[in-house]
Amino acid sequence: MTYELYYWPGIQGRGEFVRLALEEGGADYVDKAREPEAEGGGVAALQGILSGEEVERPPFAPPFLKAGRRVIGQTANILLFLGGRLGLAPRDESGKLWTHQLQLTIADFVDEIHDTHHPIAGSLYYEEQQPEAKRRAEAFLEERVPKFLGYFESVLGRNPARRGGLVGPKLTYADLSMAQVIAGLGYAFPRRAGAAVKAHPRLQALHERVFARPRIARYVASDRRLPFNDHGVFRHYDELDR
Amino acid sequence: MTYELYYWPGIQGRGEFVRLALEEGGADYVDKAREPEAEGGGVAALQGILSGEEVERPPFAPPFLKAGRRVIGQTANILLFLGGRLGLAPRDESGKLWTHQLQLTIADFVDEIHDTHHPIAGSLYYEEQQPEAKRRAEAFLEERVPKFLGYFESVLGRNPARRGGLVGPKLTYADLSMAQVIAGLGYAFPRRAGAAVKAHPRLQALHERVFARPRIARYVASDRRLPFNDHGVFRHYDELDR
Repeated sequence: MTYELYYWPGIQGRGEFVRLALEEGGADYVDKAREPEAEGGGVAALQGILSGEEVERPPFAPPFLKAGRRVIGQTANILLFLGGRLGLAPRDESGKLWTHQLQLTIADFVDEIHDTHHPIAGSLYYEEQQPEAKRRAEAFLEERVPKFLGYFESVLGRNPARRGGLVGPKLTYADLSMAQVIAGLGYAFPRRAGAAVKAHPRLQALHERVFARPRIARYVASDRRLPFNDHGVFRHYDELDR
Repeated sequence: MTYELYYWPGIQGRGEFVRLALEEGGADYVDKAREPEAEGGGVAALQGILSGEEVERPPFAPPFLKAGRRVIGQTANILLFLGGRLGLAPRDESGKLWTHQLQLTIADFVDEIHDTHHPIAGSLYYEEQQPEAKRRAEAFLEERVPKFLGYFESVLGRNPARRGGLVGPKLTYADLSMAQVIAGLGYAFPRRAGAAVKAHPRLQALHERVFARPRIARYVASDRRLPFNDHGVFRHYDELDR
């Protein structure tokens, strides 16, 4: 089956967590909104599903995945679905739930990262909420980054499988997402989050290991990987990183 | 099996979504942190698991559920687990994922509701971020409430099962959570969200139907249901509701 991923075409954003799973899982997929509109792609294709009256189970927002006739929304839910199919999650129920629990905690972390540059409203420009962003970013870097990184570092430390990732002996989609968050933090807050990551050697090693995996390395070198930029979840504003 | 729920004892908060499922499902459960400390309860019991070095798969934050030897965290993940066991989700994979997708969208809504009174940092008092809260609440009520309510109203309208809730012909945990959000919005923003809810008759009817269910009505009348108060996710600050 060819999966169809629908996400805003100009950014990594939350779609990137799905892309990484599809790439590592060797899935056959199309990044639909990056295809030409003339060939049924583009933002028009995405909007068609988002606002299409005939979709019985419509997503609230991108990313969403078409798998045959199904439309599946919510990043973590897409990964829950793909995890079993692409061999990126344990097969037993406990392992599945634990992987998903970690993914949801990563999603919470990502939401907080997003809100450092948009503390007031997603509909306003960063420049319209800059003083608030400065205050929120300060609290985030001071209190939340150490709390989240400390948590995930301790999860890595408690995994009884040596050389494992967050869950058991095998790589999961949560590892891919965690590595992406570390990469994103390094882009957005090279000074302050960069220093924080260095204090968490297991996370740093996980990040390096994930991006050294052959399929991920090939993906990152390809033009399928969009660069980080200041329209996505991870944005670099120098004044927030002081 | 007796489930053990762990959540902050003084508030409904995110724990309430789990409580409603346990109650409607007729589950045998203990609200552990509300039990006396001398009997192994209280916040001490909660903190013991949160910071206990011997928990192999520790939760990041409450609520979490102990089911036998398993510790399951993240509200939506707990509901994913309980849904099948308590008959509060469809049995087929598509239905399970769709219910969970709705729950995750409800969770996003709840996060945004929370951030109306805490736009800068959870560690600061409301009074320390009041001007920012006013700005965020304004954008939330103006743009986000209609968007979320409109979405869920349309999901109710598209359910081919007449008299159904959000998913198919039977009640699910997502219906319980949705009804709780409507109740919470009515507490926090009686004027502005109250008016918005009135414009969405299917959601209003869902809210009434859920709270009229015998088990939910008995629960709400009992002292197991904490009242809304201004320490939880839903808080009433009159100045934010103008």
